Amino acid sequence: MIQIPRGTKDILPVDSIKWQYIEEVLRETCRNFNYKEIRTPIFEQTELFVRGVGDTTDIVNKEMYTFTDKGGRSMTLRPEGTAPAVRSYIENKMHGDPNQPVKIFYQGPMFRYERQQKGRYRQFEQFGVEVIGVEDPLIDVEVISLLLDIYKSFGLEKLELHINSIGDFESREDYQKALREHFAPSIGEFCSDCQSRLDRNPMRILDCKADAKHPLMTTAPNIQDYLNESSKAYFEAIKETLTNMGIDFIVDPNLVRGLDYYTHTAFELMSSAEGFGSITTLAGGGRYNGLIEMLDGPNETGIGFGMSIERLLLALEAESIELPIDDSIDFYLVTMGEKARIEASIILNRLRTNGFSADMDYKKRGMKAQIKDADRKKARYMIVLGDSELESGKIHVRNMDTRKEVEANLDCFEEEVNFDEA
Amino acid sequence: MIQIPRGTKDILPVDSIKWQYIEEVLRETCRNFNYKEIRTPIFEQTELFVRGVGDTTDIVNKEMYTFTDKGGRSMTLRPEGTAPAVRSYIENKMHGDPNQPVKIFYQGPMFRYERQQKGRYRQFEQFGVEVIGVEDPLIDVEVISLLLDIYKSFGLEKLELHINSIGDFESREDYQKALREHFAPSIGEFCSDCQSRLDRNPMRILDCKADAKHPLMTTAPNIQDYLNESSKAYFEAIKETLTNMGIDFIVDPNLVRGLDYYTHTAFELMSSAEGFGSITTLAGGGRYNGLIEMLDGPNETGIGFGMSIERLLLALEAESIELPIDDSIDFYLVTMGEKARIEASIILNRLRTNGFSADMDYKKRGMKAQIKDADRKKARYMIVLGDSELESGKIHVRNMDTRKEVEANLDCFEEEVNFDEA
Repeated sequence: MIQIPRGTKDILPVDSIKWQYIEEVLRETCRNFNYKEIRTPIFEQTELFVRGVGDTTDIVNKEMYTFTDKGGRSMTLRPEGTAPAVRSYIENKMHGDPNQPVKIFYQGPMFRYERQQKGRYRQFEQFGVEVIGVEDPLIDVEVISLLLDIYKSFGLEKLELHINSIGDFESREDYQKALREHFAPSIGEFCSDCQSRLDRNPMRILDCKADAKHPLMTTAPNIQDYLNESSKAYFEAIKETLTNMGIDFIVDPNLVRGLDYYTHTAFELMSSAEGFGSITTLAGGGRYNGLIEMLDGPNETGIGFGMSIERLLLALEAESIELPIDDSIDFYLVTMGEKARIEASIILNRLRTNGFSADMDYKKRGMKAQIKDADRKKARYMIVLGDSELESGKIHVRNMDTRKEVEANLDCFEEEVNFDEA
Repeated sequence: MIQIPRGTKDILPVDSIKWQYIEEVLRETCRNFNYKEIRTPIFEQTELFVRGVGDTTDIVNKEMYTFTDKGGRSMTLRPEGTAPAVRSYIENKMHGDPNQPVKIFYQGPMFRYERQQKGRYRQFEQFGVEVIGVEDPLIDVEVISLLLDIYKSFGLEKLELHINSIGDFESREDYQKALREHFAPSIGEFCSDCQSRLDRNPMRILDCKADAKHPLMTTAPNIQDYLNESSKAYFEAIKETLTNMGIDFIVDPNLVRGLDYYTHTAFELMSSAEGFGSITTLAGGGRYNGLIEMLDGPNETGIGFGMSIERLLLALEAESIELPIDDSIDFYLVTMGEKARIEASIILNRLRTNGFSADMDYKKRGMKAQIKDADRKKARYMIVLGDSELESGKIHVRNMDTRKEVEANLDCFEEEVNFDEA
């Protein structure tokens, strides 16, 4: 038997209805915040990720699904959504659009060849937003509040917002210099990855899992002490506005983004629900002021975040939240005999075309089994159709909850019956 | 500059809103017909398509995006949706579900490396349904009526439903024998593909584009003359029920599906709109009674169809149909001064959290430019916020259509104003 590829999953009807609900909430929230959807292809030229994600990252070095197409070009299944969104922004000349800043969202599968573990798949679903074209603390706050609004819309409460600022390019330079001086004398005690990071990007040493317990980690310089005046003011404005909005946050100086193009605001949303497991990050984002130019675009700045739908589902589970999903149908037609079956199929078509959800038995089961089927399919109303009903044109519509029945005409019962009362 | 891969496209906000609408209609129609969504991975083991689509097809031989993953396994970006749906049906043991038949739909990107032309992409979006677990003319009719309901929901009228029966395996055998006898004496005049098809699958000769004008094509035996009694009865029942539902159709004896596992019903929906171009097929489907076993599943039968969203969009264009899309927002806050900007961002968050769509200016534009921006963003109501409004707590809510203004309180105007009258 041919099996599903490792690290991927089927989303079956019992779950897909949750996904549909989640997507509706995501779209609705984006509509409220006036973010518009863009959809980019599943694969891109490999070069886009090498440049846009960075050739020092694990994603690019170890985790990409890269292949050569029949035209001999190197393509990669997208491992993340920001680089494609920025590629689209540049290629479609969105910086020339009078509607500024450009506020977009995306949702779709992403691909990383990783070791399998709970809540982590090789094909996973990511939702994200990007705002390109303005550097303003208020837009950073908007992006953060959009993120929170999404999670709160599902009834989640055990959320922890971590924020930090890594300042502008000047502040970063000063900070990196301090980090180099801090780590350099003992760099031989660190892993080989960290040794090569020291010169090129010392901030990424702080992210290292292998060396997390090295004593020099806790004594490392704090980015907050290296922010210049304008970077400080930018961060203060964000904290003040969040406070005025009633949004709680924790300033986390260890929240740094290692890539060269990140500046100013960095943030993560974590679940503090018990039993959520070791990966508590639900979403992460930050401001990037160099990425668009790095991809040969105009001198514009951006901010965005990405979140995994799979982790959102885990968070819902951890807080025991049932989504308000209605998978009932309006009508189930129970049929007695072949004539009734054919007639029922025609009535079904009438009901469905008029916007009612309706079903019948196609397995030629007996009456009892059909009634059981109506229950299983969560029908709100049931109608038994036999020879006598066909002859008289009169039927009984039974409310499956109250068991009450009302008489109606076969050829227009859906208009006659007051379903709120029946 | 890094460009989008050839044959793929970005769906930008002006179009994505149409896609969202189309997807809502697809989901709603499926809900009415009680079909549930499944989602399968973007790629599958290559073997699935070699066996499920067939190693004599162009899809498998020429058009697949196949690559080797980091574990050394051959994977292929799915070129169609039926084989993955059936793989999922088998692997998840859906034949054991008490809810029978299994009625599912899927939607997502598919991939074929084809020559580019209008309305044809290397990544295209397909929607499809499958019903597995019952062989009954009424379910075939249900699938066909679902297909038509989808297209009619968008207001399309220039539709032509073509149907045919290729009978059961016995009828097919007789027909194929007749075809071999018909073509064999002159097979040397046909293309090499057809020559190899003669023995293995002579029905596919009828599909051949290269030999379409050969005189023997028009005089070829007609499948209708080779249907045995039960196949005839099956087809008659379908035609009769469609007629009773008021669904028009054309019996098209040339509509054959070449693959071994197809039986009985075959159907296609074409657009008869002028200027639609040379590819007029919108959707196609049929019954497959051997596919599930061929993929090592149980002895169950199925029927389904697939349709391309891109072609649906072309059909809408050809019939000049505007989808009823609302991309307006509820409120736009015009701000005068920095204090007002910060206050506006907090009010925005309140509005959005309460389910209103709202926006403001983040580019520090002047008042006139902001009012223009409110128009461009299709705001229904505009509110000017300056120092005096902040002091007094009183604002004016302006209806952008009628230009009428009503006074309200800054801290709760969204609850005060009767927006139907304002």
